[in-house]
Order: sequence, then structure tokens, then C-alpha cells
Amino acid sequence: MKQRVEIVKRILDSNEQLARQNREKLDAHKVFCINLMASPGAGKTSFILQTINRLPKHICLGVIEGDTAPVTIDSDKIMQAGMPVMQINTGGECHLDANMVGLALEELDLRVLDLLLIENVGNLICPAAFALGNHANVLIASIPEGDDKPYKYPNIYRNLDVLIINKTDLLPYIEFRMDYFQQGVEMLNPGLLTFPVSSKTGEGFEGWINWVEEKVHQIRR
Amino acid sequence: MKQRVEIVKRILDSNEQLARQNREKLDAHKVFCINLMASPGAGKTSFILQTINRLPKHICLGVIEGDTAPVTIDSDKIMQAGMPVMQINTGGECHLDANMVGLALEELDLRVLDLLLIENVGNLICPAAFALGNHANVLIASIPEGDDKPYKYPNIYRNLDVLIINKTDLLPYIEFRMDYFQQGVEMLNPGLLTFPVSSKTGEGFEGWINWVEEKVHQIRR
Repeated sequence: MKQRVEIVKRILDSNEQLARQNREKLDAHKVFCINLMASPGAGKTSFILQTINRLPKHICLGVIEGDTAPVTIDSDKIMQAGMPVMQINTGGECHLDANMVGLALEELDLRVLDLLLIENVGNLICPAAFALGNHANVLIASIPEGDDKPYKYPNIYRNLDVLIINKTDLLPYIEFRMDYFQQGVEMLNPGLLTFPVSSKTGEGFEGWINWVEEKVHQIRR
Repeated sequence: MKQRVEIVKRILDSNEQLARQNREKLDAHKVFCINLMASPGAGKTSFILQTINRLPKHICLGVIEGDTAPVTIDSDKIMQAGMPVMQINTGGECHLDANMVGLALEELDLRVLDLLLIENVGNLICPAAFALGNHANVLIASIPEGDDKPYKYPNIYRNLDVLIINKTDLLPYIEFRMDYFQQGVEMLNPGLLTFPVSSKTGEGFEGWINWVEEKVHQIRR
């Protein structure tokens, strides 16, 4: 057990180093980078597609797609939306790490990008432990997942910069105590910036788009 | 990297050994044991509660609850339903393993149980890699997660004995191509026994309950 713990620590340390290198590269090119995490099926890809639609055209966005299996369902959708996209197949691994992201960064033309979204593997546990070098951590929770998720998966909520509550269009059909959910979030991450949205109808995206625009402007200064 | 792969292999080998010990113990007590896996929020706990309600009273059921955080939300609900329940807090780990389950088995009175449900941590990736000693693997997929999950998380579908498709009550409000979903499942696990259900309304539970009863009778023979 002790040996295992040491190996895990060494893996995390070397990951931190690679994450710092990724960050330096992103900063040098003034690309604002977001690590987008969520459960399977919380709507990460349709959230990205709505974001692509609503961002002002002068912001050039790229996407890194993390998938545990070698399928291109998500990256095809984003490519169809006309965006540069790199797919990472983790080969069954349950999270992206800084090394995988570093390899993807080599393939993207960072000189033309303003914003980079990394769609992490669908998982509420493992991605929270691996720094990638991104500037902001964003979690997409979704109404059908239920209102107890902050209590059950606290680690991922602790390190967030923004929380998206997706699929608000389903609120009429599902028992979801928004107060209970938000109390849990407040306990773990006081004052966390939160945007309830529907990626299906587009409702609620203004606040999120404004936040992204502001961040892109800040990094350019 | 080579060292990491070897360590992972040794962890999995030793897990297999402990899983075999768990299985022997369950067989000796004629307890049929199910490993219940799902994404966060697919409705594992409400599925267990419906199962408790609908099982014939002569079947004595116990539950092992796996949670990544030290909260008792799920185990409280099951205890309120009058069932023996053991909670395992994985301390942030993303799956249960055979060692954790072995410790829980020591705390349960296996002499009185006929059926044991293990609620694994909400995760579609890591739990698929760790044998626990159970007799059957059951996955709960849910309608709001989307119809592409078999394509994106193939490993967990390959080793299933039963697939539950939960939250069918939400079908009118969500685009979910059942054909596309089931084609993916058929490719990975031909002929897989599948029960579409709603844990909210109780619809579709007969087939599942019959299957469980049959398995409990078989192991008693």
C-alpha cells in the first residue's frame, strides 16, 4: 500500500510539472483555456456547441475532446460547427492528464486561437485530481443527475471557478430542490459563480458568454 | 511508465484474489450478489428502493453502499426502508474494490441474507476494471444521459449480465433514439438482457424482479 501511495504521488508530481509547461505555452500565446468537466451525459458537447454559436465571431475557439473510447461522435459535431478540434483517446483511462493535453497542444495552431475548451472525460471523480495547465475549471452539473451531487462528489466542486447547471428545460418534469443543491455548493465553494442554462433552448447563456468574453479580453491585455 | 503498468497489474491481480475469496464466502452462504454500476445521478438508489418495495417478503436483501465522500444520504434512505446496509467510504477513490467489499461482508450477517446489492461509486469507467466477487454485473443507464453512451463507454457494457434503462418517464421530454442506443449495446454485448424501467413510477419492474427471484432460487438449490 505504501509503495502504491508513493507511485501515485510521483505520477501527480510529474503531472503538475507538465501542467505548468502547458500553462506557460498557453500564456505565451495568450490563449485562455478552460477545463470542462461533467458526468457522462450532462451535456458537455451540446453546451460547447451553444457556446460556439453564441460567441462573437472575432473570438477564435479551439476544442480538445477527451474520450475514453476511440469514437469521434463529439469531435465530429464540433468539427461540423467549423472549429479546430483535437481528439484525445485516453485508451480507457478515466481522466485527461497534462501529458495528453500537452501532445494535443502541439497539434493545434495556438497562434490563431483566443480560447481553448478542453472537454474532459465524463467522470465526477478522477478528473478533479489532475491539473492540465488550464486557467479555469468549469463543471457542468445537470438537472436529471439530482440535487445531491455536491454532497456526494465534493472534491470536484472545491476547485471550480464556474458552475453550469444544465438542462433547466427539464425542471418541470423532475424533482430537483435548487435550494438544497445550492446549499451544498455554497458549503464547498462559497460564492461560486453559477449559470443555470439549457443547452437545448439556449436559455441562460448570456451570463456565461459575457464571462468568457471578459476572460479572453483580460488575457490579451 | 513500465513500472506503473506493472504496479497496476499487481493491484489488479491481488484484487482478483480477494474477489475470489468474497465469492467463496457468498456461495457458502448462498447469497446472490449483484454489482450495481451507473453514472452519477442515473438513479441507483431509487432503483434499489423500488426493488426493495417489490421483492417478495421472503427474500431477505442487504445493501452495500459505495460512496466517494463520507455522506450517508443513500444509506440512510435504504436503512429507512428497513434493510441491513453497510456503507463504504472510498476516501475519494473512484470505484469499489474487492478488499473494501470483503471488509463490508464481515460486518453483514450473511446467514440471514438471500440477496446482496452492491451500489458501486457513480462512474462509468473505473468500476468496470475491478472484480468484487459478485455473481452478476448490472448497469443502470438513464434516458437523460443520452443515447450515445454505449459507444463512448464501451468497456462497462462488455461485462454486463443485465442492463437497466432507467427514467423512461422522461422519454417524452428528451430526444433519445432507442434504436441507436440498443444497436450500440448489441454490438458490445449481443443478446444482453435489458429492462427499461421508471424508478419514479415503478413501470417495467416486473421483468427485473422475476429475474432476481429466479437467480435467488437458483443459488439456493
